[in-house]
Amino acid sequence: MRAAVVVTGDEVLHGRVTERNAAFLCAWLEARGVDPVRVTVLPDRTADIAAEVRDRIHDEVDLVVTSGGLGITHDDVTMAAVAAAVGVPTALHEEALVLVGRNADRHPSRFLVSQETRDATDRKQATLPVGARMLPPVGTAPGCALEAGGTLVLVLPGPPGELQAMWLAAVEHDPGLRDVLARTGVAEGRRVLRIHDVVESQVVEALDDARTGILGNVRMGICARIGELELTLADAGVPGGADAVAARLEAAFGAAVFSRDGAPVEVVIGRGLAARREVLAVAESCTGGMIGERLTAVPGSSEWFAGGVIAYANGVKRDLLGVPRDALDTDGAVSEPVARAMAVGARRALGTGWALSVTGVAGPGGGTPAKPVGLVYIGCAAPDGAVVVHEHRFRGDREVIRQRAAVQALHLLRVRLATA
Amino acid sequence: MRAAVVVTGDEVLHGRVTERNAAFLCAWLEARGVDPVRVTVLPDRTADIAAEVRDRIHDEVDLVVTSGGLGITHDDVTMAAVAAAVGVPTALHEEALVLVGRNADRHPSRFLVSQETRDATDRKQATLPVGARMLPPVGTAPGCALEAGGTLVLVLPGPPGELQAMWLAAVEHDPGLRDVLARTGVAEGRRVLRIHDVVESQVVEALDDARTGILGNVRMGICARIGELELTLADAGVPGGADAVAARLEAAFGAAVFSRDGAPVEVVIGRGLAARREVLAVAESCTGGMIGERLTAVPGSSEWFAGGVIAYANGVKRDLLGVPRDALDTDGAVSEPVARAMAVGARRALGTGWALSVTGVAGPGGGTPAKPVGLVYIGCAAPDGAVVVHEHRFRGDREVIRQRAAVQALHLLRVRLATA
Repeated sequence: MRAAVVVTGDEVLHGRVTERNAAFLCAWLEARGVDPVRVTVLPDRTADIAAEVRDRIHDEVDLVVTSGGLGITHDDVTMAAVAAAVGVPTALHEEALVLVGRNADRHPSRFLVSQETRDATDRKQATLPVGARMLPPVGTAPGCALEAGGTLVLVLPGPPGELQAMWLAAVEHDPGLRDVLARTGVAEGRRVLRIHDVVESQVVEALDDARTGILGNVRMGICARIGELELTLADAGVPGGADAVAARLEAAFGAAVFSRDGAPVEVVIGRGLAARREVLAVAESCTGGMIGERLTAVPGSSEWFAGGVIAYANGVKRDLLGVPRDALDTDGAVSEPVARAMAVGARRALGTGWALSVTGVAGPGGGTPAKPVGLVYIGCAAPDGAVVVHEHRFRGDREVIRQRAAVQALHLLRVRLATA
Repeated sequence: MRAAVVVTGDEVLHGRVTERNAAFLCAWLEARGVDPVRVTVLPDRTADIAAEVRDRIHDEVDLVVTSGGLGITHDDVTMAAVAAAVGVPTALHEEALVLVGRNADRHPSRFLVSQETRDATDRKQATLPVGARMLPPVGTAPGCALEAGGTLVLVLPGPPGELQAMWLAAVEHDPGLRDVLARTGVAEGRRVLRIHDVVESQVVEALDDARTGILGNVRMGICARIGELELTLADAGVPGGADAVAARLEAAFGAAVFSRDGAPVEVVIGRGLAARREVLAVAESCTGGMIGERLTAVPGSSEWFAGGVIAYANGVKRDLLGVPRDALDTDGAVSEPVARAMAVGARRALGTGWALSVTGVAGPGGGTPAKPVGLVYIGCAAPDGAVVVHEHRFRGDREVIRQRAAVQALHLLRVRLATA
């Protein structure tokens, strides 16, 4: 089964919005054994969208999913475009009109516009291709599903929450989509491995495919993330291919293979802390709260994460974390002694077993020859009182340096937890 | 001038990586008056990539930019695909080989693999389409530029930092790209407006295009973000069209039009604080550090942001922010009195003029009938001692609720700053 995703929206195309819908749909489909063959992002132009949908039907993909362009403004043209691609007119769908009105009435901002505007915008959103099945609105925009030339076309709204909810409802209830999914197999042996501080060429060498032929029975994708490699494996034909690759990588890299089930490092950390009934605090300077934000994105993190101090100003390092004025004056905020004192101070101030600290020069300004942009100290304090501080010299812009610092801090803790 | 972007990579297609390159390229091009006509994301398959590049050349776009697939593993096929699309062979580029080796030698991980592996991977990365101009590597992968059928094809590496640096260097130095850009005009009157707490239908009604025809002289895109609308305007033909729309929106919505130059709310806040020589602290519970992270993403934020407390556990609210035990026991952590006390406590603990606090139920667990998922209190304490607390009931999943809370907190501060 092959699927194509068509994302519409000038704001997406022009880079002003981070597109999440294609990623959601493709990840979902791929895990269910449907092959995403392309994602296309197009402007809000009827002709462009219609041509793309028509081309994908002509290519005989089994499923085309569109995202966006179901709103009430002049540049929302997807329903019209899909109708044009499929070669049918559009018409007001009475049931959709009722649902649109009902959903829209739930929002107070609804009544900031005139009745005339409300009627016109409701009618626009309830106008669907003739013969399409309506997908009930999650927000105010209904979607639709229709078959054309052996391809199922699914039209979904742009806001990610609405798209995801409508997709999942269609998976359950739309007869066309149920049929497509029933005809796929689950990708056997599929798993995601995550490896810390290993580069792609090391994986290539460890697998030694030229000699072992190990890649013959597996579909493998390697993705370099910040500080990590992500490998996606699935059996290709013969069962056990993914197992063999995973085993070889674990033999080669040991504990650097920190996730065998795709769990990100913050989830691995949470499992480790919860198992020990221990709690973590953070003391963040240049990362500004990024580490706390990543940890608290994990549901249930309150069990093992108490919080922390965003010690952006030196006075805050001193007053809330007890970093000695001496150390700040003599060694400077970006130094091993200050990273150490921040970690110790966070443990004490928040009363936790573990603490992570980060202090560095994120740039673009603030660097000196002695302490250049990218210099970052990461500290980890453990329940037994031991404190470890690592020095890093990261490359990249402000955001990349901050992200690298956050990732390496999380991994320092992960390793300390695993070996404690 | 029309441009198309082709992003390659199974990890991108399957949604495991957040794609930033297309957004960067399209935003850059659009601001320079080049029309991005599509973005296509494809798997790491030579035939698919070659077909797409060939189709775009056939469509007579002026510029095609590819991203990704220049690495050393079996699934890095972009150079070969572009050569196939253009109809030339590939060959080892001697100058590229020297640069690849030199850049690779700078990384300690280089020497974790054998000389044989290093030679083979270097040769792969230095193999370019015959006749292409080499774009010098930023990491280890060189890119290239070549003309085919009136279209300039630019091949860039996947890691965002490398792509951006190589693109900017090519803008300066590649004769083909300089020629394309010389033939564009800057989009006249182009600006980005940001409006808080206004929905699209209100903008539609305010512009009353059916009566005023105001949209006839302007290219306008509306994008709904979390809690904000983003409008991109440019003159279409006649000068002054964008000005007219901006003026009408400012008349209709007043201070809700909080950004007239595209600056995001955290930059607007920074300008306000810097002008008053005042400093901000945050006290975050359910947002976990997200607000601090957004504020510190702004270079120079240390001038007006001191840091804060991530008070995830109630004990931390008590011990670091001085929230009374009474209030926590009686009203609960998610309450107006606790939000108030957190804001007051952050001001005091960090010694700042301003403070923001957030406490809420992010979900999916933790909700009750009295305090459901999405209930969030946001507090703002000012230098004169005044404290304002707003209650919100947000809808969405954990991440959406956290993001909505962060956005509304930033806007509460923005408004308080503007009216102080």
